[in-house]
Amino acid sequence: MKFAFIVYDGMTLLDFAGAYDPITRLKSMGFVNDFVYDVCATQKTVRTFEGLEIKADKVNNALNTYDYIFIPGGNGIAGLLKDTVLLNWIRNISTNTIMTAVCGGALLLGAAGFLKDKEATTHPGLIQYLKNYTPKVSNARIVDAGNIITARGVTSAIDLGLYLCEKIAGGEVRQKIQKQMDYQV
Amino acid sequence: MKFAFIVYDGMTLLDFAGAYDPITRLKSMGFVNDFVYDVCATQKTVRTFEGLEIKADKVNNALNTYDYIFIPGGNGIAGLLKDTVLLNWIRNISTNTIMTAVCGGALLLGAAGFLKDKEATTHPGLIQYLKNYTPKVSNARIVDAGNIITARGVTSAIDLGLYLCEKIAGGEVRQKIQKQMDYQV
Repeated sequence: MKFAFIVYDGMTLLDFAGAYDPITRLKSMGFVNDFVYDVCATQKTVRTFEGLEIKADKVNNALNTYDYIFIPGGNGIAGLLKDTVLLNWIRNISTNTIMTAVCGGALLLGAAGFLKDKEATTHPGLIQYLKNYTPKVSNARIVDAGNIITARGVTSAIDLGLYLCEKIAGGEVRQKIQKQMDYQV
Repeated sequence: MKFAFIVYDGMTLLDFAGAYDPITRLKSMGFVNDFVYDVCATQKTVRTFEGLEIKADKVNNALNTYDYIFIPGGNGIAGLLKDTVLLNWIRNISTNTIMTAVCGGALLLGAAGFLKDKEATTHPGLIQYLKNYTPKVSNARIVDAGNIITARGVTSAIDLGLYLCEKIAGGEVRQKIQKQMDYQV
């Protein structure tokens, strides 16, 4: 079970961290022993929108070897879609991979060509841009459209992470992880 | 208004990111124009519990120049309290600074000597260790004891961050930030 977290200049740190925390607990809490996760980017170091520098585990690696890929959002449509190097790289994700995104990450999936006729959601302020990529926009917190799973604004990254924990390891594991995270239901 | 986020080897990324997101929006959304924030550590690069390398803005800097300091938790009491270099550094926080912590971060404040007779909270699984530092332990989500403000497990970092936004800039600003974060109430 291989999971890739995409990171890039200008991304929102909490979009990434909100999903990274529950998903990496599949490994650290001993639930999925063959679980492998990588932080992947088009460059060795990226700077988040807030100014934090973080280091990628893998640079420009082949994304079609992963079972799951997660894409965070960033600040505004203009900032998100100017990174053509990033867009060209994520175009190589296999459609056999389950592609997940939070907030503006859904726009990146759209711009990369993966959202045609797929139902998807994003931050309420970005819905108008999501319509450029699919007619099936939703305001649900999480939308599971098979190989594309999207979530709304930044705090929904935690909900998406827990949703993926359940999908990968079942409801009982999800319950244990969200309890350990002191998640309020 | 100066705010320091402490980071260290073995910390939980989401403990930090959950507070960092709302608090940095005080600046990025234009609410507090003189708001300055630094990511501070005892070394240039730290590795989170999950394995992510992040870079500090300031190393071994004087912490008594900040209005607020935030301390994330990490994995387990043993891992947290072995870092005597970190503990000695945070002992120099001024008691005029408002010291905030989430999860095991409260134990670091305790081990540094700041919790004597202060009411505090932490992750439910760490309450027994918090009792080593103060008799006034609470299981509330957030405990505000004046110059010490603590929160429970990792997801409460977002709640603490929003609480501090309100304390710094008022309830209307907090509402705008949590709406932009798509925070569920």
